[in-house]
Order: sequence, then C-alpha cells, then structure tokens
Amino acid sequence: MNISKIFGWFFCLTITGVGSHAQFKDPRPKRKQPNIIVFLVDDMGWQDCSVPFRDKLTVSNKRFRTPNMERLAREGAKFTNAYAAPVCTPSRVSMITGMNAAHHGVTNWTSPQKGVNADAADNELLPAPWKTNGFSPVADVPNTVYATPLPQLLREAGYFTIHAGKAHWGAIGTPGANPYNMGFMVNIAGHAAGHPQSYLSEENYGNMSGKATVQAVPDLEEYYGSGTFLTDALTREALKALQEPVRRRQPFYLYLAHYAVHTPLQADKKYHQRYIDMGMDEAEARYASMIEGMDASLGTVMDFLVSKNIADNTVILFMSDNGGLSLAPPRGGLPHTQNQPLRAGKGSVYEGGIREPMLVKWPGVARPGTVVPQYVMIEDFFPSILEMAGVQLYDVVQQVDGRSFVPLLESPATADSARALIWHYPNKWIPEGGPGINYKSAIRQGRWKLVYDQRTQSSELYNLYDDIGEQQDLATRYPEKAKILRTMLSHQLQQWNAPMPILKSTGKSLPWP
Amino acid sequence: MNISKIFGWFFCLTITGVGSHAQFKDPRPKRKQPNIIVFLVDDMGWQDCSVPFRDKLTVSNKRFRTPNMERLAREGAKFTNAYAAPVCTPSRVSMITGMNAAHHGVTNWTSPQKGVNADAADNELLPAPWKTNGFSPVADVPNTVYATPLPQLLREAGYFTIHAGKAHWGAIGTPGANPYNMGFMVNIAGHAAGHPQSYLSEENYGNMSGKATVQAVPDLEEYYGSGTFLTDALTREALKALQEPVRRRQPFYLYLAHYAVHTPLQADKKYHQRYIDMGMDEAEARYASMIEGMDASLGTVMDFLVSKNIADNTVILFMSDNGGLSLAPPRGGLPHTQNQPLRAGKGSVYEGGIREPMLVKWPGVARPGTVVPQYVMIEDFFPSILEMAGVQLYDVVQQVDGRSFVPLLESPATADSARALIWHYPNKWIPEGGPGINYKSAIRQGRWKLVYDQRTQSSELYNLYDDIGEQQDLATRYPEKAKILRTMLSHQLQQWNAPMPILKSTGKSLPWP
Repeated sequence: MNISKIFGWFFCLTITGVGSHAQFKDPRPKRKQPNIIVFLVDDMGWQDCSVPFRDKLTVSNKRFRTPNMERLAREGAKFTNAYAAPVCTPSRVSMITGMNAAHHGVTNWTSPQKGVNADAADNELLPAPWKTNGFSPVADVPNTVYATPLPQLLREAGYFTIHAGKAHWGAIGTPGANPYNMGFMVNIAGHAAGHPQSYLSEENYGNMSGKATVQAVPDLEEYYGSGTFLTDALTREALKALQEPVRRRQPFYLYLAHYAVHTPLQADKKYHQRYIDMGMDEAEARYASMIEGMDASLGTVMDFLVSKNIADNTVILFMSDNGGLSLAPPRGGLPHTQNQPLRAGKGSVYEGGIREPMLVKWPGVARPGTVVPQYVMIEDFFPSILEMAGVQLYDVVQQVDGRSFVPLLESPATADSARALIWHYPNKWIPEGGPGINYKSAIRQGRWKLVYDQRTQSSELYNLYDDIGEQQDLATRYPEKAKILRTMLSHQLQQWNAPMPILKSTGKSLPWP
Repeated sequence: MNISKIFGWFFCLTITGVGSHAQFKDPRPKRKQPNIIVFLVDDMGWQDCSVPFRDKLTVSNKRFRTPNMERLAREGAKFTNAYAAPVCTPSRVSMITGMNAAHHGVTNWTSPQKGVNADAADNELLPAPWKTNGFSPVADVPNTVYATPLPQLLREAGYFTIHAGKAHWGAIGTPGANPYNMGFMVNIAGHAAGHPQSYLSEENYGNMSGKATVQAVPDLEEYYGSGTFLTDALTREALKALQEPVRRRQPFYLYLAHYAVHTPLQADKKYHQRYIDMGMDEAEARYASMIEGMDASLGTVMDFLVSKNIADNTVILFMSDNGGLSLAPPRGGLPHTQNQPLRAGKGSVYEGGIREPMLVKWPGVARPGTVVPQYVMIEDFFPSILEMAGVQLYDVVQQVDGRSFVPLLESPATADSARALIWHYPNKWIPEGGPGINYKSAIRQGRWKLVYDQRTQSSELYNLYDDIGEQQDLATRYPEKAKILRTMLSHQLQQWNAPMPILKSTGKSLPWP
C-alpha cells in the first residue's frame, strides 16, 4: 500500500455565454496543466510505419505510410526502445495502474466473459492463477487486480477525462467492463471486448440484428451505413467530446485507444488500392490501409489542436499495446516475419512481440526531433502522465512499478543501463505455439536480454545492441551474465508473487526461474 | 427563424484537489443556477401511480405503489392537466426543441432504421409527409426537423449535461441517433431505439451473442448477469455520472429517461409478487412492478441529492411521454380500460393517450404541496427549463411554441382558459385502430376539447370539466363552439404547415379541419 497525500492543482474557470472564452487564473503561473492525449494503437508493430525507429529506414518503413507519425516525431520525441507486454490486456492494465504485468497478475488477454480463462489448453500444464477477470477499480471482485486507475486521479486533479475506442480492462459483469468506473467522464465505444466485430459502417460495426456478437462496437449508430470506417467514427466522436473542455479551457485527458489495427483485417477503402498497386498481398494491403487510416486519425487530432490554438499546451503520447501480429494468416507473408528485423510478433517475449513505436510530443519540454534511446515500459505511462498533469503526490492503493519518463524528455541523452525490465507470460496464447510464445518470461538490463522458458526451465541470452533480431543465443558463452539476469528475474517475480503455470502431474506451480 | 441574442450567465468555478469544494462567485448573488433533473418515464399513464391526479384517489391510485412520487408531490407541485403527444418520439422532440408536434413534423414514433416510415399501411390513405427520420441537430438531413436542442443551450450556459436511458430522437445513420450531438456531454444507454430488447441483466438487456436486435441496450456490460433490473442499472450509472459535477459544484442537467415502463413487460422481481398477491393478472402485475421499480429509482435519486446536500438547489421534473398503453395484450384487462377514468390510451388523442402525471419540485420557488390545475404541454418544458437555468435570451433556429410554466410554480392559481393546446396525429399507429387512434387531431381550450377525425372530417366536442372520460359528444349541442375550435385548429395547423395524410385516389392531402 502506497498511501501518500494529494497535492491538488488550483485554478479558476470563468464561464460566460456562447463563444466567449475562459481565463486561467493559475496561482502557479509558470506552468499550466497541459492537455494530455494518449493515442494508443492496438497490435501495431514497431516497424509498421514510415518513421524509422532503428537508425535507418527499413523495408517496412518504406512500405507503410504514416506521415502524421512522421510529423509527430519531428515535433516531439521518438523513443527507440519502448516496450509493452506481449498481449493487450496486460499492457492496458499496466498503463492504467502503473504496475508491471507480473505484479498486477493480469498476464493474459481477458475474455469478455466473466470467469472464462482465455488460456489455451495444454497437455502438461494447468493455467497459472492469473487475474482472469482483469482490472477492477473496486475491491474484492473475484479474479481481478484492484488498483486506483489513472483517469480517476486525473479527474480528481481537474481534468475532463474522455475514453474513446477499445477499453478491454475487465470482464462483462464486473466493474472493469465499464470505463465510467475508471474515472472517465465520457465513454465512447469502450467496453469489455478486445476487438471490433467489424470496422465497417456497412455492417454497423457488427450491430446487425441477430448477428451481433459481444464484439459489436457500441455507441456509433449515427455512422451506420454512412461509409465511415471505424477509425474515423471514433476520431470524430473523440473530437466532439473535446469541444466542451476546450471551450471552457478545462484541461482534458483524452484516451483515444483505436481498435485498429487489430483483426479482423478489413480494408480502409480510402487507402487500400495504393498498397495493392505496390504489389502487397490482399491481407497486407488491408493491414497497411488500416495503418494509414490510423495515422490519418492522428493527423486529424493534431489539426484539431492547431485549429483550437491549443497544440502548444497539449501533450500527445503515441503508443501501441503489443507487437505486431505475426500469425499468417490472418497476416500475409511467412509467419513471424512481419516485424523484421525483430523476431516473432504479438504473444512473444522476443522483441517483435514487445517493442513498440512510441512518440511523445510535449511542446516546451521535449525539443522537436528528440530521440530517446533509453528503454522504457508501458507501466511508465502512469507516473509520467501524472507528472505531466502536475499531480505530484497521489493516493493509490497499489504499489506503482513504473518510472516517469519525463526526465528523459528533458534530457534525452540520459542513460540508465542498471534498470531491469521484466516480461512475464505464464500463459498459453495459441495451441500451436511459436518463437517466444507461451509460458515465457524475460528480463532486459542494458544491452542484455534473457529469455526464460517456464516449461523447460531453460534460458537464452541475447545482446540487443549487436543482435536486435535475437538470433545468437549467448547463454553458453556468458553463463555468469545469464545467471545474474535469471536470478534478478526470479527474485523480482517472487517479490511480486507472480502467477506461474501449474504442472498437472504434481498439482504444483512450476519453479521460479 | 427566431434569432435573438444570448445573455449568458457568468459564474466562477474554483476547482481544487480531491475532496475540497468549489465556491460560486455569482455576480447575480440572489439566485444560483439550480441543478435540473428531468425524470422522464416511457408510456406511463396518468393513473399509474398512487398520487391522485384527480381530486380524489381512484381505483388505479390504490393499485399502484409509488411512494416516492408521493414524496415528490408533497415537496413540490402537482400538475393535474399536463399533456404530451399520443406517442413517444413526437413528445421527446417537442421537449428538446420546444416545438409542437404539428410544427416540428415528427408526428409519429421513428423507426430506428433510416428512411423507414413507421406508419401502418392503409387502404385509402398514403402516409403524411412527416419527418420519418426524427430530430436533427444538424441542418439538411433528409426527413428530419432541424432545431437547436435544449441540452446544447444548457451546456453553453455552463451546465454539465448527462443523458441516461432512452433517447429515440432520430434514426440510425443520422446525427439524431446520438445524444452526443444534442449537447449531452455524457451518454449512458441512449440510442436510436424506442424500447429495450430486455430489462433483464440475465439476458444482458438483449445483448446475447447472435440474438441482439437493434433494441439491445448499450453501455451496461458491467451489470450483465448481476440480477440488476434495467431501471436500477440506469439509475446507478446516472448517479455515477453526477459525481463529477457535484464534486466541483458545476450545475448539472440530468435527463434520466427511463426505458420503463414500455413493453416488453417483464417483472421487476423485487416488487412483482405483491401485485400477484393482490389478485392482479400476470401482465398487470408485471406492469405494476415496473412502475414501482421506476418509482424506487426516483427515490434513489432524491436520496442522493439529500446525501450530497444539494436537494435544496435541484429542480426535479417528473413526466411521462404519452398515455399508458391500453392495448391488451400486452397489457392485462379489457382493451382501452387501463387509464380509466380517462378514455383509451397510448396512440389516442383522447385523454388516456395524452394526459400525463407531471410533478415539479423547485425548492424556494414552488411551495410544497402545490397543485397546478392550469393545462400545460410537453413543449413547455423547453422554455421552462431554460428559465430555470437563468438563460433569459437564447439563439435558436426554430420558432419555440412552448410557454414557460415557471410562473405557474410561483402562482399556481393562475388560470388561462384562452390558451389552446394542439395535438396532431396524421399517422396510422396500429392496423386495427381504436378509440381516438389513427389520423386524429385535437384542440383544447379551457374546458373544451374538440377531437377531429382526418379521414371522415368529423368532429367531436367534449366538456372536460364535466366529462373527463369524453363520453358525451356535445358537437351537435354546441355547434358554434365546435366550429370555433375547429377553425382555430385548422388555422394553427395551416400556419405550421402540419403534415396531412394523402388520399390514394386523388394523390392529394386530406383537407385541413
């Protein structure tokens, strides 16, 4: 329990009639509470854009077209070593709680159905006792992690808090299903499902009478049949919700969490043909069109900020929740090649499953064109955003694991090779498995990364500086390094009491690393 | 076009950290902007409560149990001659625009499907050119009425605006489908549908995979499977949304428009058995249980206001959108007897279809226990609520027909027998017809009410003071009175260019009355 006192912000809003403007009367005149936008993409890989997150343009960078990400990178900071969990709910819970996935225990994606374990069946192992119902802002809900959510703290600090897009924090029938329970004041289209039934207005985003599943996207009836791709409908609704706080100059927190680019892969027609003409296969052309549509949304948001004259006081944080999907089909090409030069993709603790395209623009703090090589993690968003909001002390029920990356925006050359990042996936994602997929943990410290297989209790060691593709296992060559990292990983997992799979034959948990 | 200048309210909100309170700094120190709650029930009849809206308790008053309506009536004003349109969308559009239904042209309930005319087919008549797609806050949407919506004006005046429950202003695929386009900042469960697929959390309010229809209620996943009746889930969500404006003392407008007590009639188990034990048939027992559940919601809201110490600065307006359903089945008993002593029910221009249980509590303005006999109409809510909010001049694109009833709260004995109220239903609601149902208009002035049949072009005349049941047609006895009222009705309908049914044989509209 980390109980501390809150230091609130004081400010004064003068509201007048239509068309007039409010004035800030800030007793701390040097710094206003900035508006904050988290622009979160689903299942987008590190290379799925035209922004080079390596030192030079890759083949992927030349295939994908994301001019607005380029613009954001030019105007802000590019994090070249940003990480998330291998699948989505763990990352989303980490962002909203500030906790590492091994600590909060929501280690796998959550089924929309309460009490349903999303793990695939295994011959030898029973599921780990992970939090199958996800995150809960209320105590004592079975199989959930209880924590104080970020939007609630921002709302209490005076922010107008808006949720638009995918929520996927908790199961139907629990408080975690509902963004209104997280401190959001507005919710557009967020619920318990992890992907949309359809991106197409022609299919009412899934809401066809008698055909709707739990993935049918709520709240967008206005757009049914209008030819509006889901990404665009969410963008328009998000900007609509921004009108009110912008009008009266209340600082806002917009969490715009696109359903794109998760499956089902459906063409965004405005962009699709160009990729077909480039010679991409149908699946990849659809995917690329969804990427470009997502990027167009980013541009629309940025243009809105400029038009309202608030771009200079708005932080934009761009992030994805896990690596790009590398199962093929549904993706095109050969399986597990889509995130090259990284190895594997979503579901894996190899870099392809966890490394993310992260950008942060904070005018006046991060200089345009900044590059931040220091590694950061999805749980770092929690303390970072609170620091941006001027919330210096806060009262939360959980122990926050993340560290603010605000100092990195100010001093991007700062290097900390002592920090250790942890991934822990004691789950079975897909029956067939794949590289780095199912029952894996990993730790990164400096250049070194250890990948641990929970079932076989074996380790691999990689030097990411020389071998970002994790092709050369150095565990035999550097046994001492491997041992140190494995011990660090083990200690940290024990300290967090991280869930571990259970061996059917003994009924006991697999050993710590 | 009624273009006038806006006189905005000026006030100052001081927002501090958690748990602290804001102070109003109102340059007009004698009057604060009150919080305003519209508590709108669907399809509730004038007699479906234990509050006597006649001079004495009726049989119905003794059957139904609504202690919180009794409490509201004790604490505020009871309007004994309050009216709405015979079906729901016209009333809802009147409330949000201030226009009479004959004027705004949304004379029938709107299908959730764009371009679908909800009128039943007729051998002789083609549908009137009414606004089949409902209300639109945006110009130039086909088959809609464009107007400036009430919540938008309230938001612009500084209110935190919340929608919870049934919206049903416009068709899917138009802006009217979405409460966010009306000026609401929060929307809970409101969309294009006019009734819920289910009231039961056990059926996910309709959202069962592959079984959901367009009437499946959105936004309530948290409550699925929890045993929470829809009415209670909406109430809880509404109060959740109120936390924020209450915390920082921003005036709020809560439009809590229950889906209850519209069909499907489903038992609210907390109350159902009592009515079975009283000897009611199953349908009526279910209906009565839904009424009692709705009343319990009112009590919960009133208790919330007391607990937050804001009851004294909160206006509560209780209303229904049309008369009680008198089709049986689905209601129990003999058809068209459920609203006795009134004649007929929903869909009819007889009193049973249009007379409503209306209560208004405004502490410090309306004395406790006030009774207001002056007749008022659903479109009066628009200017009344704006007056309550201190919005004295406003800029709207429509001509407002309603009149503020605020003076009646202050001086309840005021009588105006010169005002004429108009009903106009140039539509076919049900194939089989019924008393006062299909292709009817009506006008009330003072004690007199004329009912006009558009198809037969015949009139009936009633003296409501002596004959609230509309049993004695006095048209032959008082031909001059009938003629005057018919002329007034005709002139007003012509002035509004009210839609009229079209005779198939000629292709021309039926004549004005």
